[in-house]
Amino acid sequence: MRGPDGAAAGGPPSPVIARVTRAGRDESIHRGFGAVCGAEGEPVAAFGDPETPIFWRSAAKPFQALPFFEAGGDRAFGLTRDEAALSCASHSGEPAHVAAALSMLEKGGFSVADLRCGVHAPYDGASARELERAGEAPSALHNNCSGKHAAMLLACRLFGFDASRYDAPDHPLQRAILEKVAFYAGYPAAGIEIGIDGCSLPVFRLPLSKLAAAYARLAAPAALAGESAEAAAARVRIVGAMTGSPFHVSGTGQFTTRLLEAGRGRWIGKEGAEGVYAMAIADPLRGIAFKLDDGSSRARNAVACALLGQAGAWTEVPASLAADVRPELRNARGTAVGEIVTDVPLAWARAATPARATGAPPAAVPLR
Amino acid sequence: MRGPDGAAAGGPPSPVIARVTRAGRDESIHRGFGAVCGAEGEPVAAFGDPETPIFWRSAAKPFQALPFFEAGGDRAFGLTRDEAALSCASHSGEPAHVAAALSMLEKGGFSVADLRCGVHAPYDGASARELERAGEAPSALHNNCSGKHAAMLLACRLFGFDASRYDAPDHPLQRAILEKVAFYAGYPAAGIEIGIDGCSLPVFRLPLSKLAAAYARLAAPAALAGESAEAAAARVRIVGAMTGSPFHVSGTGQFTTRLLEAGRGRWIGKEGAEGVYAMAIADPLRGIAFKLDDGSSRARNAVACALLGQAGAWTEVPASLAADVRPELRNARGTAVGEIVTDVPLAWARAATPARATGAPPAAVPLR
Repeated sequence: MRGPDGAAAGGPPSPVIARVTRAGRDESIHRGFGAVCGAEGEPVAAFGDPETPIFWRSAAKPFQALPFFEAGGDRAFGLTRDEAALSCASHSGEPAHVAAALSMLEKGGFSVADLRCGVHAPYDGASARELERAGEAPSALHNNCSGKHAAMLLACRLFGFDASRYDAPDHPLQRAILEKVAFYAGYPAAGIEIGIDGCSLPVFRLPLSKLAAAYARLAAPAALAGESAEAAAARVRIVGAMTGSPFHVSGTGQFTTRLLEAGRGRWIGKEGAEGVYAMAIADPLRGIAFKLDDGSSRARNAVACALLGQAGAWTEVPASLAADVRPELRNARGTAVGEIVTDVPLAWARAATPARATGAPPAAVPLR
Repeated sequence: MRGPDGAAAGGPPSPVIARVTRAGRDESIHRGFGAVCGAEGEPVAAFGDPETPIFWRSAAKPFQALPFFEAGGDRAFGLTRDEAALSCASHSGEPAHVAAALSMLEKGGFSVADLRCGVHAPYDGASARELERAGEAPSALHNNCSGKHAAMLLACRLFGFDASRYDAPDHPLQRAILEKVAFYAGYPAAGIEIGIDGCSLPVFRLPLSKLAAAYARLAAPAALAGESAEAAAARVRIVGAMTGSPFHVSGTGQFTTRLLEAGRGRWIGKEGAEGVYAMAIADPLRGIAFKLDDGSSRARNAVACALLGQAGAWTEVPASLAADVRPELRNARGTAVGEIVTDVPLAWARAATPARATGAPPAAVPLR
């Protein structure tokens, strides 16, 4: 097995997928593994070992919102599209995010004290500085996960569940979410390991390839085999909220927001902590997921762009993402000192060919 | 060749030296390479490929201060011990650091406008927040390198060099510094590659093992072959300032400050960007250097402690560093979710045995 687990046990390493240069030399490198899956979760391409188990982290958020949406909770509580997007966001804690999270809480008669996500300063630097200037401490509303937690509180109200311990792995809402992850991943719930996430919710550990498969299914245009019409409609509403309100999925200047804006419904992307990123392309329908071995994020955007291009999302990178492809590194004086250069050795399954690949198509090497 | 360059070219990977766990599983891993050298720079132990070239980054700071100290500049300008320490610091931009940097400038008739390091917010969170609350912007004095730059301006005054472009690679001060790096590394100056550092100064690229050798020589008790009495006395004053004023080498709560405090002259340590760390132990005289492949720093302190123990600095880790050995990771609610676990596969040269090693001595495997 490659990736963190296998490599720590002496197994083969993940490939180098990004180099951080200085004066034309490689100063640091990043390794990683990833998978591209087709409409039914079938493997299409991969690099490294796509069967390495990973914690999905915040890339699981669309699925964590599903039980609530499937039961019509978004309509029952009259969520706006921005609020629906916030329910699966890792937001930057900007004033509009905080206002939307508070609005969601109030629609269920909850307050900030009911959130169990903990407190951290806004990811958005300007918002964090504004709090400092005003002499205000951040609250749980500024936590990047506050929208997800607010939606879970509303789900407890909707289903009549105990709202005081909604984050416990044995809580009925968390059991329902686990079943959703298992269904869309095509993986037995009993085989999914559970850890504690940065926001205290259960976090799911299963093979990376299943995250790619789950994102392909998330973006499927019609109901899947074994999926209810309500569930299919729910994920369409969730994806629609993400593509329709990109700011509420992340924040000002953030890669995921710019990626969603550039896609205009043609693709989605969602980050997770520790170097995880998951995406779906609508045409050809593909799910994509990858993780950096070292859990860092500085090469993540460039790798995501490389994979979207190779998987057929575009033949030319959108202008708003051009600077993400090969980011220039500048020092404290603003001088260019190096760059981040990606080279993702995507190996295609024998039957699969890259759709609309740029340049020469990659050799058809079988997946291991 | 291992490490960033070689690995990117398809060479063997550096070993996994730290695992970041969650729920008992390896979520992310860090690879790295390092070297332990003896009193004359001879290899004693290593992991990964110690001959991988690296940019020394801020681990070069004691050597960048040497020409000034060797010429007696610290005495000529009446630097305090704190100011001498600041001349080779990566400080946190706390008020005392800023005051010391300003004092150094004023001793040469310079002002903040003469600093060419650029501006960044203080590393120290409380100091950064205090600036925000006061509505003040950070200045070049808050740059972690401001003490080094101030000492270089004083050097220009002392030597009669042009102080307006002291950061140019062809400036006589930078040429003198390059010669110092070459001498203590035991490596030809012509073979040292130059890049631009985060603070705009020249940064030096040469094999990692030479950084370990340079730190062993930096800490040598007597004059080295080919070293003037003035140069030997200068490095004794520099090391004495670092061990005597640990706060001025880094800052509140910082690992390097705590390491220097715990050492009380028995060892020194200095970080560099992109996962570089260099140390010296006084008895047995050893130089130690390592780099994380991915350039991250979260496993750095734990790896430094592991190496100091294995190289004979202590048989029991000092209490003030105990939490650095195997750091616990907590989430936004304060719940323990994982830890950083190191395992540094140090291979000892055949002739060398670890002095005062804890537990069973490692097998005597030859260095490659």
